[in-house]
Amino acid sequence: MEKEPISEDNQVKSMAIANIKFKKGFWYDRIELIRKTVIPGQWKALNDQIPEAEASHAIENFRIAAGEIKADFYGRVFQDSDVAKWLEAVSYSLAAQADPELEKLADQVIDLIVRAQQADGYLNTYFTIAEPDQRWKNVRDLHELYCAGHLIEAAVAYYQATGKQKLLDAVCKLADHIDTVFGKEAGKKPGYPGHQEIELALVKLYHLTKNKRYLALSQYFIDQRGSQPHFFTSEAEERQEESKKHYNDLFDYSYSQSHLPVREQTVAVGHAVRAMYMYCAMTDLAVETGEQDLIKACQRLWNNVTKRQMYITGGIGAQDHGEAFTFDYDLPNDTAYTETCAAIGLVFWAQRMLLLEAKAEYADLMEKALYNGVLSGISLDGQSYFYVNPLEVWPASCEQRYDLSHVESTRQEWFGCACCPPNIARLIASLGQYVYSFSRQAVFVHLYTACQASFELGGQTVKLTQQTNYPWEEEVIITVSTEKTVEFTLALRLPGWCKNPDLELNGEKVTLDQLTEQGYAQLTREWEKGDQVVLRLPMPVERIRANPEVRKNSGKVALQRGPLVYCLEEVDNGSNIFALVLPRNNQLQAGYDPNLLGGIVQLEGEAVKIDRSLWNGELYQANADQYQVTPLKAIPYYAWNNREAGEMLVWITEN
Amino acid sequence: MEKEPISEDNQVKSMAIANIKFKKGFWYDRIELIRKTVIPGQWKALNDQIPEAEASHAIENFRIAAGEIKADFYGRVFQDSDVAKWLEAVSYSLAAQADPELEKLADQVIDLIVRAQQADGYLNTYFTIAEPDQRWKNVRDLHELYCAGHLIEAAVAYYQATGKQKLLDAVCKLADHIDTVFGKEAGKKPGYPGHQEIELALVKLYHLTKNKRYLALSQYFIDQRGSQPHFFTSEAEERQEESKKHYNDLFDYSYSQSHLPVREQTVAVGHAVRAMYMYCAMTDLAVETGEQDLIKACQRLWNNVTKRQMYITGGIGAQDHGEAFTFDYDLPNDTAYTETCAAIGLVFWAQRMLLLEAKAEYADLMEKALYNGVLSGISLDGQSYFYVNPLEVWPASCEQRYDLSHVESTRQEWFGCACCPPNIARLIASLGQYVYSFSRQAVFVHLYTACQASFELGGQTVKLTQQTNYPWEEEVIITVSTEKTVEFTLALRLPGWCKNPDLELNGEKVTLDQLTEQGYAQLTREWEKGDQVVLRLPMPVERIRANPEVRKNSGKVALQRGPLVYCLEEVDNGSNIFALVLPRNNQLQAGYDPNLLGGIVQLEGEAVKIDRSLWNGELYQANADQYQVTPLKAIPYYAWNNREAGEMLVWITEN
Repeated sequence: MEKEPISEDNQVKSMAIANIKFKKGFWYDRIELIRKTVIPGQWKALNDQIPEAEASHAIENFRIAAGEIKADFYGRVFQDSDVAKWLEAVSYSLAAQADPELEKLADQVIDLIVRAQQADGYLNTYFTIAEPDQRWKNVRDLHELYCAGHLIEAAVAYYQATGKQKLLDAVCKLADHIDTVFGKEAGKKPGYPGHQEIELALVKLYHLTKNKRYLALSQYFIDQRGSQPHFFTSEAEERQEESKKHYNDLFDYSYSQSHLPVREQTVAVGHAVRAMYMYCAMTDLAVETGEQDLIKACQRLWNNVTKRQMYITGGIGAQDHGEAFTFDYDLPNDTAYTETCAAIGLVFWAQRMLLLEAKAEYADLMEKALYNGVLSGISLDGQSYFYVNPLEVWPASCEQRYDLSHVESTRQEWFGCACCPPNIARLIASLGQYVYSFSRQAVFVHLYTACQASFELGGQTVKLTQQTNYPWEEEVIITVSTEKTVEFTLALRLPGWCKNPDLELNGEKVTLDQLTEQGYAQLTREWEKGDQVVLRLPMPVERIRANPEVRKNSGKVALQRGPLVYCLEEVDNGSNIFALVLPRNNQLQAGYDPNLLGGIVQLEGEAVKIDRSLWNGELYQANADQYQVTPLKAIPYYAWNNREAGEMLVWITEN
Repeated sequence: MEKEPISEDNQVKSMAIANIKFKKGFWYDRIELIRKTVIPGQWKALNDQIPEAEASHAIENFRIAAGEIKADFYGRVFQDSDVAKWLEAVSYSLAAQADPELEKLADQVIDLIVRAQQADGYLNTYFTIAEPDQRWKNVRDLHELYCAGHLIEAAVAYYQATGKQKLLDAVCKLADHIDTVFGKEAGKKPGYPGHQEIELALVKLYHLTKNKRYLALSQYFIDQRGSQPHFFTSEAEERQEESKKHYNDLFDYSYSQSHLPVREQTVAVGHAVRAMYMYCAMTDLAVETGEQDLIKACQRLWNNVTKRQMYITGGIGAQDHGEAFTFDYDLPNDTAYTETCAAIGLVFWAQRMLLLEAKAEYADLMEKALYNGVLSGISLDGQSYFYVNPLEVWPASCEQRYDLSHVESTRQEWFGCACCPPNIARLIASLGQYVYSFSRQAVFVHLYTACQASFELGGQTVKLTQQTNYPWEEEVIITVSTEKTVEFTLALRLPGWCKNPDLELNGEKVTLDQLTEQGYAQLTREWEKGDQVVLRLPMPVERIRANPEVRKNSGKVALQRGPLVYCLEEVDNGSNIFALVLPRNNQLQAGYDPNLLGGIVQLEGEAVKIDRSLWNGELYQANADQYQVTPLKAIPYYAWNNREAGEMLVWITEN
């Protein structure tokens, strides 16, 4: 395998959260919501203080494991990871904005976690409480390595936010312990996790500690995965189990993407979140090593996911069974699984692909998933969540059909399997890492949002200020601030959804064609304090069609404006929005309403619907296609189900 | 409860199979197929002589139960019913046409069945072989009464066909035994079957034997059903089982329509076949007793099924889970269950509703189900079967999606649960019972098909001859033959699908408006030998729309000509028929092709499809709605999947 590590000089990095300040606007509001409402609310959930929500017991489990109270473990085997992800969200929030009380609480939680750690470094409340003699005997199904990965991510984030080393020391000890258990050396298990996660966490731990053993262990897990003889089979045999499948024979090895060595995988299969976390780690390692086979595998899988198996919202995972990918172009709108965590995973992966190569396509999808399939997972008030994010909902059907029993038609305060809520909290709290990436010579602007950030470029500290009311308004003003003139490239993403972007530099129009590379307008020059670029991204209302191979969207359009996918809701359009037909030539008007759903641009126009007076209770008729004009109103998909329960529809019949 | 038994004089009856001879034509061909191919083929299946088909063991089970060989029971607890239904099909076939060899085989099977009967009359191979001490202890789940019902139906049919009494005696003994086990008297179980069937069988047995105890037992089962305390709960408690549900807690009592007393049921729920068989018995009893509450319940349930929960093919049961009804207007085309047996059950029920009141609506639905949702269940060569009959099939999806795992995209030679194949055989073999019904003063013509039949009308034998090439051609000629002039009403169904029927009597046009009652053109007169009516039923190609409440059919049309629903198949239209769009004003041409699929009228015309050259592998695009003209060809739904596997679609996008 050819290996060309990217030189330190050209290495594109994501930025530290501390170096960016969001300003009043779309993401600022949401980051504030996470800090003020979501993090405190989730703390209550983790402590079982939300009366009508599903129980968590996650904090209690740590107390039991620490020997401080006597009780049984409760929850999923991966319950610890909820605490870890919450702590990671807290860390990003603290990195962005000091909050001594929150930090104190986090310190207490960390103290508790560390007290639950065993002398040999082992740290997992389920096994410590419930099955101490079963450690590392079923990594296929029981999420031990997964939980360790989340603790590592939390520790790295907390150290970066606060400089405090207690949890970092604990997870290094844990990682060191894991390194004694797994690996190719004699006496170690030639294994890897059933649910990927630790691989990407170990790369983070390596970046922070520079300890190459962590990178090597991550690489081992990725390289070993899917090799023969199959570890999960040998492991099951050691347990004297016949099953070569996950979870009582329900799922074969493709469920955990261990059906083939990773470099031989060509299409996304199995559990979508596992896939995303694995692809993240593959990309991390590809960035580290420059290994061409791994890079090609990442690109191939990216293309399969985003050009064949992704909903227009950035949601992925087309079926409930296995929370999984199905096959190319199979994208039903109602039975979709589209787990919030999977869209989050796609954002994680897109960010890493951007570090591998700065192509706007990755940032486009990152933006798409963020604004749509991720954000739909949390209510506007930050107090309830969707686990599953389908593109059409008929509540009666979700309540009564068994094959839709995975779809909740209203957001829930918490879940028995509560992976999504803290995942969305940690992603939004860390959004400062996603806006830009940079090398020593260039800044890539991936997301447009009001903020101020500072970079080290050409040996100088350069500040960039974005002023914008994106995604509601089309204009982004970026102002450069630098002590001395400095040469660097300012690379502005020209979103794929935008047909006619327009750029001015210090008041003069810039011809984009020549400057644009891989979807970024690359302005390379000697920048001076006060230099200003104005990017205009016209946002007409677009009717998006799906590739004709997507059979379920035949004859239908989705409405999009800028990066936002729109939907119809029953509360705006009356019952049975499925019967609305949007005539081909009807224009829709976009208008900002500050009082609707926290302030949104809504789309309004006219549709038609069948004249029901022709029906008289018949079920089928030959002569019943007279239409009546009816008003239509669409809102951003992410904002649905924030007023009352009802039908929702993304793909609208067109005529 | 008000009871008005219908007087013998006005009683409308179905006719004996022996009194009707089908002539070369649509149904004649199929009845011949049943006789020559299906009955012998199913005999092989029941004897495990079809190498690649699923095992049956049904005949072998009787040999074991008779003590003639030693082996374990194999198959479902209701495996006996496959033999009974086969024997019933044989009986109808023999009634229509003598076949000494087949009769000899049937006699041997009957001898075997009778040898398996226990001294007390009990007759069920599963319990006799496998759980002799568990008789009548779980009638909720284990189909004992269901199997008895099918044996009774077979015995009645065999006696009617051959006059041979051996099986009839055996099932009377069995029914007498059951009558000692179930009933309101002290010491009897206040129970009823989990799977309805015996109720309608007992009415048949009563009609033949005139033994009122059988009618009373049927009435008891129906009246007792769903009453409190709930028998299935008491029965489960006696078994020391906690479950108040069917099959390991999967289904509540609505699954078996025992959630409420039958007269309180307003919507169709639960397992669709059970529902149909129960509604049949309710209608049988309503016909017998004239009880208004029961009549109203039948009408209410009929309206719910046919105006709210029925596919355009006459298929019913919108979900796999529980093989069940879901709720009003929930009629997804791909995840449909639409079991062949359920459509058959709808035919059974429609025929009974016609005896309750001669309304064309019942015959329309009977015809619809027969030509579409029933007939799709068997291949044109009579050698393979669909259990599930969805209205759209994308084979890749059926193979790969868990929520479509119930859908086979090609017909199978046999099934582990083989209820459908012998059910379709017995229905088609008995079709002579469905063409007409009659009283002493009237003949109702429900189905149009070439045949000759004789009736006792006004004390005379009257012969009616139908000459027609229906459903391919529009004309039906009915000729009366009688020795002496006789007054009676000839009531001709004017199908609901036909907008402009046209009728001539002896060459003179008849004005239909005044003659038409409940959808039948009623010609009451003194009929003479040679009188002839010519009915023309124009069959333009119709575009049928679904009620807008059927959300899955928004923007779609189904093609229909006469009673036949059409579909698109991949073999005629290329891959991805889902992407075809039928422009609103495009005309389709109907043309008979004698060489296609055994001779069918096909529909041809032009559709459009998205120009794929605009796509280039993109998944979503804003500007890609240029269409190309493409030929479209539709075939009758029943005939699909008789050439090669591929996509199939009933509801086509219209534009």
